Amino acid sequence: MENKQLEEKVIMGIDPGTNIMGYAFIGVRGNHARLIAMGVIDLRKFGDSYLKLGEIFSRVQGLIKSFLPDELAIEAPFFGKNVQSMLKLGRAQGVAIAAAISRDVPIHEYAPLKIKLAITGNGGASKEQVADMLRRMLKIDEEEMPRFMDATDALGAAYCHFMQQGLPVTKAGYSSWKDFAAKNPNKIK
Amino acid sequence: MENKQLEEKVIMGIDPGTNIMGYAFIGVRGNHARLIAMGVIDLRKFGDSYLKLGEIFSRVQGLIKSFLPDELAIEAPFFGKNVQSMLKLGRAQGVAIAAAISRDVPIHEYAPLKIKLAITGNGGASKEQVADMLRRMLKIDEEEMPRFMDATDALGAAYCHFMQQGLPVTKAGYSSWKDFAAKNPNKIK
Repeated sequence: MENKQLEEKVIMGIDPGTNIMGYAFIGVRGNHARLIAMGVIDLRKFGDSYLKLGEIFSRVQGLIKSFLPDELAIEAPFFGKNVQSMLKLGRAQGVAIAAAISRDVPIHEYAPLKIKLAITGNGGASKEQVADMLRRMLKIDEEEMPRFMDATDALGAAYCHFMQQGLPVTKAGYSSWKDFAAKNPNKIK
Repeated sequence: MENKQLEEKVIMGIDPGTNIMGYAFIGVRGNHARLIAMGVIDLRKFGDSYLKLGEIFSRVQGLIKSFLPDELAIEAPFFGKNVQSMLKLGRAQGVAIAAAISRDVPIHEYAPLKIKLAITGNGGASKEQVADMLRRMLKIDEEEMPRFMDATDALGAAYCHFMQQGLPVTKAGYSSWKDFAAKNPNKIK
Protein backbone atom coordinates (compact mmCIF):
# COMPACT_ATOMS: atom_id res chain seq x y z
CA MET A 1 0.00 0.00 0.00
CA GLU A 2 3.01 2.30 0.25
CA ASN A 3 4.06 4.44 -2.67
CA LYS A 4 0.51 4.23 -3.91
CA GLN A 5 -0.01 6.29 -7.02
CA LEU A 6 -2.06 9.43 -6.49
CA GLU A 7 -5.53 9.43 -7.93
CA GLU A 8 -6.13 12.00 -10.64
CA LYS A 9 -8.30 14.94 -9.69
CA VAL A 10 -10.35 16.69 -12.38
CA ILE A 11 -10.72 20.49 -12.42
CA MET A 12 -13.31 22.13 -14.65
CA GLY A 13 -12.86 25.73 -15.77
CA ILE A 14 -15.63 27.98 -17.07
CA ASP A 15 -15.43 31.38 -18.72
CA PRO A 16 -19.05 32.45 -18.44
CA GLY A 17 -20.46 34.68 -21.15
CA THR A 18 -23.90 35.33 -22.59
CA ASN A 19 -22.96 34.57 -26.21
CA ILE A 20 -20.07 32.13 -25.97
CA MET A 21 -19.33 30.15 -22.83
CA GLY A 22 -15.90 28.56 -22.68
CA TYR A 23 -15.12 25.37 -20.76
CA ALA A 24 -12.07 23.22 -20.07
CA PHE A 25 -11.15 20.15 -18.06
CA ILE A 26 -7.71 19.33 -16.74
CA GLY A 27 -6.56 16.26 -14.85
CA VAL A 28 -4.10 16.91 -12.05
CA ARG A 29 -1.96 14.45 -10.15
CA GLY A 30 0.50 15.87 -7.62
CA ASN A 31 2.15 18.80 -9.34
CA HIS A 32 1.43 17.51 -12.85
CA ALA A 33 -1.50 18.66 -14.98
CA ARG A 34 -2.80 17.44 -18.34
CA LEU A 35 -5.51 18.73 -20.67
CA ILE A 36 -8.58 16.49 -20.85
CA ALA A 37 -10.92 18.59 -23.00
CA MET A 38 -11.82 22.15 -23.88
CA GLY A 39 -14.38 23.88 -26.04
CA VAL A 40 -17.20 26.37 -26.16
CA ILE A 41 -20.97 26.41 -25.80
CA ASP A 42 -22.18 28.66 -28.62
CA LEU A 43 -25.31 30.50 -27.49
CA ARG A 44 -25.63 32.91 -30.39
CA LYS A 45 -28.27 30.90 -32.21
CA PHE A 46 -30.75 31.18 -29.32
CA GLY A 47 -32.94 34.25 -29.68
CA ASP A 48 -35.04 33.66 -26.60
CA SER A 49 -33.16 34.35 -23.36
CA TYR A 50 -34.83 31.45 -21.51
CA LEU A 51 -33.87 29.00 -24.25
CA LYS A 52 -30.33 30.31 -23.87
CA LEU A 53 -30.39 29.75 -20.11
CA GLY A 54 -31.87 26.29 -20.64
CA GLU A 55 -29.06 25.43 -23.05
CA ILE A 56 -26.43 26.59 -20.55
CA PHE A 57 -27.98 24.49 -17.79
CA SER A 58 -28.27 21.28 -19.79
CA ARG A 59 -24.86 21.62 -21.47
CA VAL A 60 -22.98 22.40 -18.26
CA GLN A 61 -24.79 19.60 -16.44
CA GLY A 62 -23.98 17.25 -19.33
CA LEU A 63 -20.30 18.17 -19.22
CA ILE A 64 -20.20 17.62 -15.46
CA LYS A 65 -21.87 14.25 -15.91
CA SER A 66 -19.34 13.25 -18.58
CA PHE A 67 -16.11 14.37 -16.93
CA LEU A 68 -17.05 14.21 -13.23
CA PRO A 69 -15.00 17.22 -12.11
CA ASP A 70 -13.98 17.38 -8.46
CA GLU A 71 -13.93 21.17 -8.52
CA LEU A 72 -15.03 24.06 -10.69
CA ALA A 73 -13.05 27.26 -11.26
CA ILE A 74 -14.88 30.26 -12.75
CA GLU A 75 -13.36 33.38 -14.24
CA ALA A 76 -14.92 36.30 -12.37
CA PRO A 77 -16.12 39.01 -14.75
CA PHE A 78 -14.93 42.54 -15.12
CA PHE A 79 -17.39 45.17 -13.97
CA GLY A 80 -18.01 48.16 -16.14
CA LYS A 81 -20.73 47.14 -18.54
CA ASN A 82 -24.19 48.61 -18.10
CA VAL A 83 -26.62 47.28 -15.50
CA GLN A 84 -28.81 45.50 -18.04
CA SER A 85 -25.95 43.48 -19.52
CA MET A 86 -24.63 42.71 -16.03
CA LEU A 87 -28.02 41.28 -15.08
CA LYS A 88 -27.97 39.10 -18.20
CA LEU A 89 -24.43 37.96 -17.48
CA GLY A 90 -25.35 37.27 -13.87
CA ARG A 91 -28.27 35.09 -14.95
CA ALA A 92 -26.08 33.11 -17.35
CA GLN A 93 -23.52 32.60 -14.58
CA GLY A 94 -26.23 31.72 -12.07
CA VAL A 95 -27.54 28.98 -14.34
CA ALA A 96 -24.04 27.54 -14.87
CA ILE A 97 -23.38 27.71 -11.12
CA ALA A 98 -26.70 25.95 -10.45
CA ALA A 99 -25.66 23.11 -12.75
CA ALA A 100 -22.54 22.66 -10.60
CA ILE A 101 -24.50 22.99 -7.35
CA SER A 102 -27.01 20.38 -8.54
CA ARG A 103 -24.16 17.89 -8.81
CA ASP A 104 -22.33 18.97 -5.63
CA VAL A 105 -19.25 20.38 -7.36
CA PRO A 106 -17.47 22.98 -5.18
CA ILE A 107 -16.97 26.35 -6.92
CA HIS A 108 -14.00 28.72 -6.83
CA GLU A 109 -13.78 32.10 -8.48
CA TYR A 110 -10.72 33.91 -9.81
CA ALA A 111 -10.40 37.46 -11.11
CA PRO A 112 -8.88 37.78 -14.63
CA LEU A 113 -5.90 39.64 -13.19
CA LYS A 114 -5.16 36.80 -10.78
CA ILE A 115 -5.39 34.21 -13.56
CA LYS A 116 -3.03 36.14 -15.84
CA LEU A 117 -0.60 36.71 -13.00
CA ALA A 118 -0.61 33.06 -11.92
CA ILE A 119 -0.03 31.76 -15.45
CA THR A 120 2.28 34.31 -17.07
CA GLY A 121 3.66 36.20 -14.07
CA ASN A 122 2.21 39.36 -15.62
CA GLY A 123 -1.22 40.67 -14.64
CA GLY A 124 -1.36 42.74 -17.83
CA ALA A 125 -0.71 39.81 -20.20
CA SER A 126 -2.90 39.55 -23.32
CA LYS A 127 -5.32 36.65 -23.87
CA GLU A 128 -2.94 35.40 -26.58
CA GLN A 129 0.01 35.38 -24.18
CA VAL A 130 -2.02 33.45 -21.59
CA ALA A 131 -3.15 30.97 -24.26
CA ASP A 132 0.41 30.48 -25.49
CA MET A 133 1.76 29.87 -22.00
CA LEU A 134 -1.02 27.34 -21.30
CA ARG A 135 -0.26 25.62 -24.61
CA ARG A 136 3.37 25.18 -23.64
CA MET A 137 2.73 24.17 -20.02
CA LEU A 138 0.13 21.58 -20.97
CA LYS A 139 2.02 20.48 -24.13
CA ILE A 140 -0.91 21.12 -26.48
CA ASP A 141 -0.25 21.01 -30.24
CA GLU A 142 -0.62 24.30 -32.06
CA GLU A 143 -3.35 22.76 -34.27
CA GLU A 144 -5.33 21.60 -31.27
CA MET A 145 -5.71 25.12 -29.92
CA PRO A 146 -9.31 26.34 -30.09
CA ARG A 147 -10.55 29.08 -32.37
CA PHE A 148 -12.34 30.85 -29.52
CA MET A 149 -10.34 32.48 -26.75
CA ASP A 150 -13.27 31.74 -24.42
CA ALA A 151 -12.07 28.12 -24.29
CA THR A 152 -8.50 29.08 -23.34
CA ASP A 153 -9.86 31.58 -20.81
CA ALA A 154 -11.72 28.69 -19.18
CA LEU A 155 -8.55 26.61 -19.30
CA GLY A 156 -6.74 29.51 -17.62
CA ALA A 157 -9.25 29.51 -14.76
CA ALA A 158 -8.84 25.74 -14.26
CA TYR A 159 -5.03 25.97 -14.42
CA CYS A 160 -4.97 28.93 -12.03
CA HIS A 161 -6.99 26.88 -9.53
CA PHE A 162 -4.51 24.01 -9.91
CA MET A 163 -1.60 26.39 -9.24
CA GLN A 164 -3.32 27.99 -6.25
CA GLN A 165 -3.61 24.74 -4.43
CA GLY A 166 0.04 24.22 -3.66
CA LEU A 167 -0.92 21.45 -1.27
CA PRO A 168 -0.52 17.80 -2.22
CA VAL A 169 -3.47 16.66 -4.30
CA THR A 170 -4.08 13.74 -1.94
CA LYS A 171 -5.80 16.13 0.44
CA ALA A 172 -8.88 16.13 -1.78
CA GLY A 173 -8.07 12.96 -3.66
CA TYR A 174 -9.63 9.53 -3.45
CA SER A 175 -7.88 6.31 -2.60
CA SER A 176 -10.01 4.19 -4.92
CA TRP A 177 -13.11 4.17 -7.09
CA LYS A 178 -15.03 2.76 -4.14
CA ASP A 179 -13.81 5.62 -1.97
CA PHE A 180 -14.77 8.10 -4.70
CA ALA A 181 -18.23 6.59 -5.01
CA ALA A 182 -18.73 6.64 -1.26
CA LYS A 183 -17.76 10.29 -1.05
CA ASN A 184 -19.69 11.36 -4.15
CA PRO A 185 -23.00 9.53 -4.21
CA ASN A 186 -24.48 12.28 -6.41
CA LYS A 187 -21.86 11.89 -9.11
CA ILE A 188 -22.53 8.30 -9.97
CA LYS A 189 -26.30 8.34 -10.18
CA MET B 1 -67.43 13.17 -20.60
CA GLU B 2 -69.22 16.42 -21.40
CA ASN B 3 -69.29 19.25 -18.91
CA LYS B 4 -66.09 17.84 -17.52
CA GLN B 5 -64.74 19.98 -14.71
CA LEU B 6 -61.63 21.92 -15.64
CA GLU B 7 -58.41 20.70 -14.09
CA GLU B 8 -56.76 23.17 -11.76
CA LYS B 9 -53.60 24.76 -13.04
CA VAL B 10 -50.92 25.89 -10.60
CA ILE B 11 -48.99 29.12 -11.16
CA MET B 12 -45.88 29.87 -9.13
CA GLY B 13 -44.75 33.46 -8.62
CA ILE B 14 -41.25 34.52 -7.60
CA ASP B 15 -39.94 37.90 -6.53
CA PRO B 16 -36.23 37.29 -6.85
CA GLY B 17 -33.91 39.12 -4.49
CA THR B 18 -30.47 38.49 -3.04
CA ASN B 19 -31.52 38.82 0.61
CA ILE B 20 -35.17 37.83 0.67
CA MET B 21 -36.78 35.84 -2.15
CA GLY B 22 -40.58 35.85 -2.16
CA TYR B 23 -42.68 33.01 -3.55
CA ALA B 24 -46.36 32.25 -3.99
CA PHE B 25 -48.55 29.56 -5.52
CA ILE B 26 -52.07 30.06 -6.82
CA GLY B 27 -54.44 27.48 -8.23
CA VAL B 28 -56.52 28.64 -11.19
CA ARG B 29 -59.54 27.02 -12.78
CA GLY B 30 -61.26 28.91 -15.57
CA ASN B 31 -61.48 32.51 -14.39
CA HIS B 32 -61.23 31.63 -10.71
CA ALA B 33 -58.01 31.76 -8.69
CA ARG B 34 -57.24 30.68 -5.12
CA LEU B 35 -54.17 31.08 -2.92
CA ILE B 36 -52.31 27.82 -2.29
CA ALA B 37 -49.24 29.06 -0.41
CA MET B 38 -46.90 32.01 -0.08
CA GLY B 39 -43.78 32.83 1.86
CA VAL B 40 -40.17 33.91 1.68
CA ILE B 41 -36.76 32.30 1.46
CA ASP B 42 -34.62 34.25 3.91
CA LEU B 43 -31.05 34.39 2.62
CA ARG B 44 -29.65 36.91 5.09
CA LYS B 45 -28.03 34.29 7.31
CA PHE B 46 -25.75 33.03 4.51
CA GLY B 47 -22.47 34.93 4.44
CA ASP B 48 -20.92 32.99 1.57
CA SER B 49 -22.46 33.85 -1.79
CA TYR B 50 -22.23 30.25 -3.07
CA LEU B 51 -24.02 28.91 -0.01
CA LYS B 52 -26.69 31.52 -0.72
CA LEU B 53 -27.02 30.38 -4.33
CA GLY B 54 -27.10 26.74 -3.20
CA GLU B 55 -29.92 27.56 -0.77
CA ILE B 56 -31.91 29.30 -3.53
CA PHE B 57 -31.49 26.32 -5.86
CA SER B 58 -32.50 23.66 -3.36
CA ARG B 59 -35.39 25.66 -1.86
CA VAL B 60 -36.89 26.64 -5.23
CA GLN B 61 -36.48 23.08 -6.50
CA GLY B 62 -38.10 21.79 -3.30
CA LEU B 63 -41.07 24.15 -3.70
CA ILE B 64 -41.51 23.08 -7.33
CA LYS B 65 -41.39 19.43 -6.29
CA SER B 66 -44.02 20.03 -3.59
CA PHE B 67 -46.52 22.14 -5.53
CA LEU B 68 -45.87 21.00 -9.14
CA PRO B 69 -46.52 24.38 -10.79
CA ASP B 70 -47.49 24.35 -14.46
CA GLU B 71 -45.92 27.76 -15.01
CA LEU B 72 -43.64 30.23 -13.28
CA ALA B 73 -44.08 34.02 -13.31
CA ILE B 74 -41.13 36.17 -12.24
CA GLU B 75 -41.15 39.83 -11.35
CA ALA B 76 -38.57 41.47 -13.62
CA PRO B 77 -36.26 43.76 -11.68
CA PHE B 78 -35.83 47.48 -11.94
CA PHE B 79 -32.54 48.58 -13.41
CA GLY B 80 -30.66 51.37 -11.73
CA LYS B 81 -28.53 49.71 -9.11
CA ASN B 82 -24.80 49.49 -9.65
CA VAL B 83 -23.25 46.86 -11.93
CA GLN B 84 -21.93 44.77 -9.04
CA SER B 85 -25.31 44.41 -7.36
CA MET B 86 -26.94 43.69 -10.73
CA LEU B 87 -24.51 40.83 -11.29
CA LYS B 88 -25.35 39.43 -7.84
CA LEU B 89 -29.06 39.79 -8.50
CA GLY B 90 -28.65 38.17 -11.92
CA ARG B 91 -26.88 35.19 -10.37
CA ALA B 92 -29.60 34.74 -7.77
CA GLN B 93 -32.24 34.90 -10.50
CA GLY B 94 -30.25 32.56 -12.74
CA VAL B 95 -30.12 29.93 -10.01
CA ALA B 96 -33.88 30.22 -9.37
CA ILE B 97 -34.53 30.03 -13.13
CA ALA B 98 -32.29 26.95 -13.38
CA ALA B 99 -34.35 25.23 -10.68
CA ALA B 100 -37.45 25.81 -12.84
CA ILE B 101 -35.65 24.75 -16.03
CA SER B 102 -34.42 21.56 -14.36
CA ARG B 103 -38.04 20.58 -13.80
CA ASP B 104 -39.36 21.81 -17.17
CA VAL B 105 -41.50 24.64 -15.81
CA PRO B 106 -42.09 27.36 -18.46
CA ILE B 107 -41.08 30.84 -17.30
CA HIS B 108 -42.79 34.20 -17.89
CA GLU B 109 -41.51 37.58 -16.82
CA TYR B 110 -43.47 40.71 -15.90
CA ALA B 111 -42.25 44.22 -15.22
CA PRO B 112 -43.35 45.71 -11.85
CA LEU B 113 -45.34 48.39 -13.69
CA LYS B 114 -47.29 45.78 -15.62
CA ILE B 115 -48.05 43.82 -12.45
CA LYS B 116 -49.30 46.90 -10.62
CA LEU B 117 -51.38 47.95 -13.59
CA ALA B 118 -52.94 44.51 -14.06
CA ILE B 119 -53.88 44.17 -10.40
CA THR B 120 -54.86 47.68 -9.31
CA GLY B 121 -55.43 49.46 -12.63
CA ASN B 122 -52.75 51.93 -11.56
CA GLY B 123 -49.10 51.51 -12.61
CA GLY B 124 -48.02 53.83 -9.80
CA ALA B 125 -49.73 51.86 -7.01
CA SER B 126 -47.76 51.22 -3.81
CA LYS B 127 -46.76 47.70 -2.69
CA GLU B 128 -49.34 48.04 0.10
CA GLN B 129 -52.11 48.86 -2.39
CA VAL B 130 -51.17 45.86 -4.55
CA ALA B 131 -51.08 43.60 -1.46
CA ASP B 132 -54.46 44.86 -0.29
CA MET B 133 -56.06 44.30 -3.68
CA LEU B 134 -54.64 40.76 -3.85
CA ARG B 135 -55.91 40.08 -0.35
CA ARG B 136 -59.44 41.07 -1.38
CA MET B 137 -59.40 39.29 -4.76
CA LEU B 138 -58.08 36.05 -3.30
CA LYS B 139 -60.15 36.39 -0.10
CA ILE B 140 -57.17 36.11 2.23
CA ASP B 141 -57.69 36.90 5.93
CA GLU B 142 -55.91 39.98 7.21
CA GLU B 143 -53.99 37.80 9.74
CA GLU B 144 -52.79 35.47 7.03
CA MET B 145 -51.00 38.23 5.15
CA PRO B 146 -47.24 37.83 5.27
CA ARG B 147 -44.87 40.12 7.11
CA PHE B 148 -42.61 40.49 4.09
CA MET B 149 -43.83 42.35 1.01
CA ASP B 150 -41.56 40.06 -1.06
CA ALA B 151 -44.16 37.31 -0.64
CA THR B 152 -47.04 39.52 -1.86
CA ASP B 153 -44.85 40.77 -4.71
CA ALA B 154 -44.42 37.14 -5.79
CA LEU B 155 -48.16 36.63 -5.44
CA GLY B 156 -48.66 39.70 -7.64
CA ALA B 157 -46.48 38.18 -10.37
CA ALA B 158 -48.44 34.92 -10.27
CA TYR B 159 -51.78 36.73 -10.28
CA CYS B 160 -50.69 39.01 -13.12
CA HIS B 161 -49.81 35.94 -15.18
CA PHE B 162 -53.24 34.47 -14.45
CA MET B 163 -54.91 37.71 -15.59
CA GLN B 164 -52.78 37.96 -18.72
CA GLN B 165 -53.95 34.66 -19.98
CA GLY B 166 -57.52 35.63 -20.76
CA LEU B 167 -57.90 32.41 -22.66
CA PRO B 168 -59.69 29.44 -21.16
CA VAL B 169 -57.35 27.56 -18.90
CA THR B 170 -58.05 24.31 -20.75
CA LYS B 171 -55.65 25.48 -23.42
CA ALA B 172 -52.72 24.57 -21.22
CA GLY B 173 -54.62 22.24 -18.92
CA TYR B 174 -54.61 18.48 -18.68
CA SER B 175 -57.57 16.20 -19.24
CA SER B 176 -56.46 13.70 -16.63
CA TRP B 177 -53.61 12.66 -14.37
CA LYS B 178 -52.49 10.25 -17.10
CA ASP B 179 -52.44 13.10 -19.60
CA PHE B 180 -50.50 15.24 -17.13
CA ALA B 181 -47.99 12.46 -16.56
CA ALA B 182 -47.59 11.89 -20.29
CA LYS B 183 -46.93 15.57 -20.92
CA ASN B 184 -44.70 16.09 -17.88
CA PRO B 185 -42.49 13.05 -17.51
CA ASN B 186 -39.97 15.11 -15.54
CA LYS B 187 -42.45 16.19 -12.91
CA ILE B 188 -43.34 12.76 -11.65
CA LYS B 189 -39.90 11.21 -11.36
